[in-house]
Amino acid sequence: MPHSVSVFGAAGFTGALTARLLYRHPSLELRAVTARSDVGRRLDDLYPHHRVPLELEELDLDRHAEVDAAVVAYPHGAAAPVVAELRERGVRVVDLSADFRLHDPAVYGRWYREHQAPELLGEAVYGLPELYREEIRGASLVANPGCYPTASLLALAPLARAGVVEDVVIDAKSGVSGAGRAATEKTHFVTVDENLNAYGVPRHRHIPEIEQELAILGADVRITFIPHLVPLDQGELVSCYVTLSEDAVDPGSLEELYAEAYAGEPFVELAAAPPGVRDVRETNICRISVHRDERTGRVIVFGAIDNLWKGAASQAVQNLNLMLGLPEDEGIGVTTSAERRAVR
Amino acid sequence: MPHSVSVFGAAGFTGALTARLLYRHPSLELRAVTARSDVGRRLDDLYPHHRVPLELEELDLDRHAEVDAAVVAYPHGAAAPVVAELRERGVRVVDLSADFRLHDPAVYGRWYREHQAPELLGEAVYGLPELYREEIRGASLVANPGCYPTASLLALAPLARAGVVEDVVIDAKSGVSGAGRAATEKTHFVTVDENLNAYGVPRHRHIPEIEQELAILGADVRITFIPHLVPLDQGELVSCYVTLSEDAVDPGSLEELYAEAYAGEPFVELAAAPPGVRDVRETNICRISVHRDERTGRVIVFGAIDNLWKGAASQAVQNLNLMLGLPEDEGIGVTTSAERRAVR
Amino acid sequence: MPHSVSVFGAAGFTGALTARLLYRHPSLELRAVTARSDVGRRLDDLYPHHRVPLELEELDLDRHAEVDAAVVAYPHGAAAPVVAELRERGVRVVDLSADFRLHDPAVYGRWYREHQAPELLGEAVYGLPELYREEIRGASLVANPGCYPTASLLALAPLARAGVVEDVVIDAKSGVSGAGRAATEKTHFVTVDENLNAYGVPRHRHIPEIEQELAILGADVRITFIPHLVPLDQGELVSCYVTLSEDAVDPGSLEELYAEAYAGEPFVELAAAPPGVRDVRETNICRISVHRDERTGRVIVFGAIDNLWKGAASQAVQNLNLMLGLPEDEGIGVTTSAERRAVR
Amino acid sequence: MPHSVSVFGAAGFTGALTARLLYRHPSLELRAVTARSDVGRRLDDLYPHHRVPLELEELDLDRHAEVDAAVVAYPHGAAAPVVAELRERGVRVVDLSADFRLHDPAVYGRWYREHQAPELLGEAVYGLPELYREEIRGASLVANPGCYPTASLLALAPLARAGVVEDVVIDAKSGVSGAGRAATEKTHFVTVDENLNAYGVPRHRHIPEIEQELAILGADVRITFIPHLVPLDQGELVSCYVTLSEDAVDPGSLEELYAEAYAGEPFVELAAAPPGVRDVRETNICRISVHRDERTGRVIVFGAIDNLWKGAASQAVQNLNLMLGLPEDEGIGVTTSAERRAVR
Repeated sequence: MPHSVSVFGAAGFTGALTARLLYRHPSLELRAVTARSDVGRRLDDLYPHHRVPLELEELDLDRHAEVDAAVVAYPHGAAAPVVAELRERGVRVVDLSADFRLHDPAVYGRWYREHQAPELLGEAVYGLPELYREEIRGASLVANPGCYPTASLLALAPLARAGVVEDVVIDAKSGVSGAGRAATEKTHFVTVDENLNAYGVPRHRHIPEIEQELAILGADVRITFIPHLVPLDQGELVSCYVTLSEDAVDPGSLEELYAEAYAGEPFVELAAAPPGVRDVRETNICRISVHRDERTGRVIVFGAIDNLWKGAASQAVQNLNLMLGLPEDEGIGVTTSAERRAVR
Repeated sequence: MPHSVSVFGAAGFTGALTARLLYRHPSLELRAVTARSDVGRRLDDLYPHHRVPLELEELDLDRHAEVDAAVVAYPHGAAAPVVAELRERGVRVVDLSADFRLHDPAVYGRWYREHQAPELLGEAVYGLPELYREEIRGASLVANPGCYPTASLLALAPLARAGVVEDVVIDAKSGVSGAGRAATEKTHFVTVDENLNAYGVPRHRHIPEIEQELAILGADVRITFIPHLVPLDQGELVSCYVTLSEDAVDPGSLEELYAEAYAGEPFVELAAAPPGVRDVRETNICRISVHRDERTGRVIVFGAIDNLWKGAASQAVQNLNLMLGLPEDEGIGVTTSAERRAVR
Repeated sequence: MPHSVSVFGAAGFTGALTARLLYRHPSLELRAVTARSDVGRRLDDLYPHHRVPLELEELDLDRHAEVDAAVVAYPHGAAAPVVAELRERGVRVVDLSADFRLHDPAVYGRWYREHQAPELLGEAVYGLPELYREEIRGASLVANPGCYPTASLLALAPLARAGVVEDVVIDAKSGVSGAGRAATEKTHFVTVDENLNAYGVPRHRHIPEIEQELAILGADVRITFIPHLVPLDQGELVSCYVTLSEDAVDPGSLEELYAEAYAGEPFVELAAAPPGVRDVRETNICRISVHRDERTGRVIVFGAIDNLWKGAASQAVQNLNLMLGLPEDEGIGVTTSAERRAVR
Repeated sequence: MPHSVSVFGAAGFTGALTARLLYRHPSLELRAVTARSDVGRRLDDLYPHHRVPLELEELDLDRHAEVDAAVVAYPHGAAAPVVAELRERGVRVVDLSADFRLHDPAVYGRWYREHQAPELLGEAVYGLPELYREEIRGASLVANPGCYPTASLLALAPLARAGVVEDVVIDAKSGVSGAGRAATEKTHFVTVDENLNAYGVPRHRHIPEIEQELAILGADVRITFIPHLVPLDQGELVSCYVTLSEDAVDPGSLEELYAEAYAGEPFVELAAAPPGVRDVRETNICRISVHRDERTGRVIVFGAIDNLWKGAASQAVQNLNLMLGLPEDEGIGVTTSAERRAVR
């Protein structure tokens, strides 16, 4: 019998895509999709290409919480209260907001606002399976990482774990879907098309999340992180410029370091050439290349993901799969080329 | 001494571009830019690339109408009352809305709403200089054509005048700037990017305008007109499929017909190959090619313009130049290649 | 045991996508991919996003023809000889070229060149499953339709069958992948970006294919067909302007006509609003809307497909599925929203 | 009497644009355009939007060097011999290649190849008017900077001059026109569209040029420089991450530093918010914003230009204007908003 799931907040880009993936998931049954706007509209009217013939409903926890698991795709701040109610009813939750990503409510307070459910922070697991696979398996509440942290941490983790990171500059570039569904001057086609600019300078909210996880991995640094908006739909690239603290890592071993770190990972793909976001479009894959600049000694790591997939919705399904004891890649499509060869 | 002008409604795409062209016009002085939204913001803050360092002001006719001429860039319906007030004060007006394009207020009523200033329809001249140059020279009120009618009429006029048009299908394609500055689901980058669709099916408001002018030219037909939205910023292409009423026009003479019709026109460019919208981007030029399909006998005419320039703002300046006795091409950049060669 | 297949000509866009779909097909085993260029390169090097870890091989029929079925993705003219050899060895073939689409070798000769294997024309079935499903099931050679004919015929078939078509203008728009992988001035990003133009005016090679099939369906007309290039990757829209021969079809029954014609079709989706190419991106679905222009009596039908999927590769797999007795939708992803609801 | 000029190598993007600007320059007369490919084609056939009705001619120095000045738009390495011949005939030259940008032929040799005219290096002036205006005025040979160095040096010059730069990472992003006119897999629309990737990692040839000029300004550093390709036509953004050598510069004075450095510069525009490439499209303007990250102490500077204009062709005209004693902005359009206000 399939596990039952609901998606809360399915009118936005990430919630709707999560609904699409769950609707076609072989071992899950999507029971309901709720929304705060567009109640009564069908998802396949709002997003024809997702082909989910369900109606968006107004939140009714008595009905919608009668499920084994839930994905919450609410804005930061609005998510915590709903997650708290769901947890009270014993529902397993993957939360797409930032509300349970930061372990320290004081840090959350500084970058967002006062936390609405600090009592749950203790049970929340940071949902990056490549770092916390075992913890996620047993978790009842998983905080799905932000898109920028997903790409950045996967790009930097091997170096951070090796304890060689002294300083990091992350120049990040994202497609427009990362800005969400709200129609504003910033998301108007005429604003974005043939354009390119930085935003959120210099204090983007993904910074504390990246620093928290880098510190846990072994790199206790203050990062410089600047995101840019590029004229494409889905796709995100982080270009990480790492100053090494020592000379212990040489070019040859850099590639080995990454190969070992990600051996057997179904959704991390190592490449010799800098990855393009097109290489990972509509997949749960993070494609990484690592380079050493001999002239400066700096290490440069690129990480490419689809911000709506591995950066949000398909990673939520990956987490759900782990939490529910299902195969990790069920319902989220192809794995890396390397993996395919191995399994066939 | 330069003539003084104001732009009313300069916060939108076409009003702002008109302001930019007038601000740099050698013989005009841009006195004021008004707006219904964004009052107090500077135009070069809202549209940095236009580089017009003027502040958007709330409408104050006592001050803003103290000019020789005005360009009104208000929405349909909202324009008529302002135009009426300006005309009362003796200001010459180029109106970018549809309010004075249709000669018959009853037709206007059917496609828009009840007309707010029918008494002015008699003095309004349809502002397509290639058709009504002399009338525009003496006009005090010019109704700037819609973007689709501009391209369609220039593409079809020679055939219509020859009296050989029996039936016309116009398949039109426009960049997103044609949808205006309003941020909506329809203009969101993610909606438009990598997409392509028809809209306004089957009753787009530009139909009566095209039919009115075709009839005057000699083609009293009911047209089929379907616009499409394409993922680009500025640019518009009309593909006109004409069934001829008789066999009087043969392939050879088709090209001659067009060459004669547009000989000496500074802003109409004839091409052998189908024009691309890139060929006319940021110009006042309409580029046209005409073809005969021997298999079906049908004539196919393509017309490409920049919807914000020849389709709106630069054509408004072209009209102003004519009304004020200035050189027709002053302040609106290059003319066709053919013209350049002639004048040098 | 899975059926074995090879793809001949897998270095191009459609061959490579076919290889990707076959590589992950549950009931087929992709044995080899051959190419005329790029021999020795791996497909996942050439097309990382397809993730097919196979090496492109030089054609060696003795090895590569040892399969149950083959997909040939060669250029027009080059395909016929290879198809002939494969058929001689008893291999079932889906051919993506135009070589076996036209029943009359004289017509082929006029639009392409002298036919290289006219003796096979008798056994070739036109591979549009929505029209020839039963014939395809028993076929040994299927001629996969062109992308424009696929969309056009699905859009027009119900009207053609009803015998009410007097005249048709098809204004078609395609993304750049339709121009193939060759790097030329025409496919350079700078040529296509922010551009839009017609091409192949007025004699595009897809015309005889559309006319042949329309005639068989019941509409013996000479069509006007003009394709346009739009700045997007994958996606194709046909806007069909139909003059009816009689008044037998009224607005209400138009929708019924289409609903009946496509009831139960897994890959045809009817919509009330004009379809966008984004609605069908990376699917085997053709999305259609039909409209009547009351003013002119004309019927307007829009059909949207992904030119590389339903317009080529996924339709080839759909045909293979039918030929090999497999479920029609195996390995080619989601079906329409309507279908999904039915099967769940 | 106007000065006469020729453009050598006008078939490429930058040469053709230079020809367009010179063709309409009020004080220059464009005598000839030569090319190594496309000889005999007209420029307005190859680039309709430039509207330059001249024929591309095969190089004939006896005829083409009979001019006051020349712009050479040849590839690196091929330029030096032609420049040498032109100089021998006394023609003033602006060279768009890298051949005369590096003062040390040994450095040139390491990054390019053996220098073909080292004897001319002494007279060559680096053509960034904002740094070398006076030297350019008297120069007979000007080496037009690369597009990345133009944006990078203008973004970094005030800090470099202040002697506070300890380390620099430049993450650069460019539109596809920067890759030139050659049709390759890399410039194919389908490769670039909806994509984004780094290239030339980690040794791009613009590095020594940037380092040479930074050192002269006062920052003797080894830079990390990584360019990225983004899916747009014209436009380039550099994001410069600067580690300061001391704490002498505080946030307030940063803005002052830049305001003073660029006071009165007609083509440098300072902005509070990060600039977009759309803000400078088809202009000779570099738009800059400077920010301090309080958390890390790092200074972040963004510089946006149009790679074909300020990054190549219009800067060449700016240099020509200076060399020939003409107004610096003649023939290259608008200056900054600030300047406009000053001059009116």
